[in-house]
Amino acid sequence: MAVITIIGAGMMGSALAVPARDNGHEVRLAGTPLDGHIIRALLSGLGHPTLERDLPRGTGYYYAEAAAEALSGAELVICGVSSFGVDWFAESVLPLLPPDVPVLSVTKGLLCSPGGVLTTFPDYYASLAPQRPYCAIGGPCTSYELADKAPTHVCFCGEDPAVLQNLRAMLATPYYRASLSCDVFGVETAAALKNAYALAVTLTRSRNSQAALFGQAVAEMRGLLALFGAGAENIAYAAGDLYVTIFGGRTRLLGDLLGSGLPYSEAARRLEGVTLESAVIARRAAFALRKALEAGRASGGDYPLLLHMGEVIAENKPAPLLWESLF
Amino acid sequence: MAVITIIGAGMMGSALAVPARDNGHEVRLAGTPLDGHIIRALLSGLGHPTLERDLPRGTGYYYAEAAAEALSGAELVICGVSSFGVDWFAESVLPLLPPDVPVLSVTKGLLCSPGGVLTTFPDYYASLAPQRPYCAIGGPCTSYELADKAPTHVCFCGEDPAVLQNLRAMLATPYYRASLSCDVFGVETAAALKNAYALAVTLTRSRNSQAALFGQAVAEMRGLLALFGAGAENIAYAAGDLYVTIFGGRTRLLGDLLGSGLPYSEAARRLEGVTLESAVIARRAAFALRKALEAGRASGGDYPLLLHMGEVIAENKPAPLLWESLF
Repeated sequence: MAVITIIGAGMMGSALAVPARDNGHEVRLAGTPLDGHIIRALLSGLGHPTLERDLPRGTGYYYAEAAAEALSGAELVICGVSSFGVDWFAESVLPLLPPDVPVLSVTKGLLCSPGGVLTTFPDYYASLAPQRPYCAIGGPCTSYELADKAPTHVCFCGEDPAVLQNLRAMLATPYYRASLSCDVFGVETAAALKNAYALAVTLTRSRNSQAALFGQAVAEMRGLLALFGAGAENIAYAAGDLYVTIFGGRTRLLGDLLGSGLPYSEAARRLEGVTLESAVIARRAAFALRKALEAGRASGGDYPLLLHMGEVIAENKPAPLLWESLF
Repeated sequence: MAVITIIGAGMMGSALAVPARDNGHEVRLAGTPLDGHIIRALLSGLGHPTLERDLPRGTGYYYAEAAAEALSGAELVICGVSSFGVDWFAESVLPLLPPDVPVLSVTKGLLCSPGGVLTTFPDYYASLAPQRPYCAIGGPCTSYELADKAPTHVCFCGEDPAVLQNLRAMLATPYYRASLSCDVFGVETAAALKNAYALAVTLTRSRNSQAALFGQAVAEMRGLLALFGAGAENIAYAAGDLYVTIFGGRTRLLGDLLGSGLPYSEAARRLEGVTLESAVIARRAAFALRKALEAGRASGGDYPLLLHMGEVIAENKPAPLLWESLF
């Protein structure tokens, strides 16, 4: 059995303690500097305040200040920070790691250069500290249900199949199944894009309208995967993940507000304190698409929904009234 | 303005009276021999008993026995029978039509030959009476919400673009938008396959599990569209339609019962009187797939979910406990 350190005590990072403990590992959950209240609650035996569940017995809890202690002797590090914690992880945690310990990222998102080039978080970390394998988890999985052990199927992606097999051996359970993929960019792009499109689908409320936007989202995600150089088969992860993301959570909260007619600036103000990763990825994906359009590599007519979301987020345009432009 | 006759007073056929009337057409709704109680209720001013809504003022109602009268002078015939009414439509209605009046089919399903060749309903009708254009409607649309005028996006498919443009001009409204496609087989196969896979996804109840099966469904539908010779872009219709089908209706009723452990024979008995189109298409699609496997044209490992559904429906095997074989 191994020592697994999870960095980031948000809902998904914390929920991963469940399969890790079920597989008998020593699990240490370390908060980010923003997770102090979560670690305090867990140390007090109050359960996880946002996941609203107890974590497995035997899990160790560490404040951000004690991250070095939590990482001592770790054989696997799971990076469970939100996309807003990626720089903190890169600057404060990566230097603490032994050179050969693998990092498994469960953060969903992409970075975007001023030229419109998208980069995954594993590739970003590898560019800073290339001396270890970086892998990631894609595919649909809500933290609540992982904690409840409802059967789930995700995808572990990374460059080295042997490392991936080892990660699966450490973490997979009958309720937490994982495919393996060496297409890191494809799996991560699918996982990020679905956040952008989940925001678009939740602008509407009726099922027919959501289904129309769902179909348009799948059509556009297919095109974007090809445009950005990701494998076409990743549309299955994107679609499954889109399905589960629409049901609830922060993305839907924001989509509901935008769909009701609030401009993005006002919706974001009302959701202060809520991480709006979907808005960030929508803006970045729309920006990368616009760069591709400028270079003549794509046709804007194929991506009305993402271009609309880009305007909603980056230019504060009202979100509703898009049907005419879509179909 | 034209005379539009809708054959089949089920929910979808009846709901199409809404955009047709909004466009100012004379609309005649004729029941099948099984729709007598619906026509009676509508003629009595009681509203549509299963759609649970009033139909537009000015719609004319006809019993099956008066189909010839309803069809007299029709400039468009919408075939709104269920897949179990296709033979009745072919035998009893097609002979009543003038040679040049287009038929627009909204029935979802496919026929399957003993050799495993799948045929769309438009192609089936054309094989019997080739003297007129046959078109069809695919894409996501629930009858309830169409009747409520919630924005929807569907696809009209047919061989002749000019006919399709004319159909769209007759029927489309701001809440009932339609793309056009000449890939009849692709649009119809996507629409049919999603029924089979909606049954599979509703075997489970947790969102994570449904999302895992949703992703697997999209992966398999992509493969089947290619295997059966349909255009890859139709996956967008299949996915959007899968999304809306999972939420409710007859397919979900059946999936719930199968997922609870009932064998198909018992689930079907409990749902007596409910049309189980999803089970029929699951059996047919699985049969066509198995023929392709026998011919060495596909690998069974790519289609565990459909093969499982085929066994559940055709061989009465218990539906749950499929996770091990899937991932």
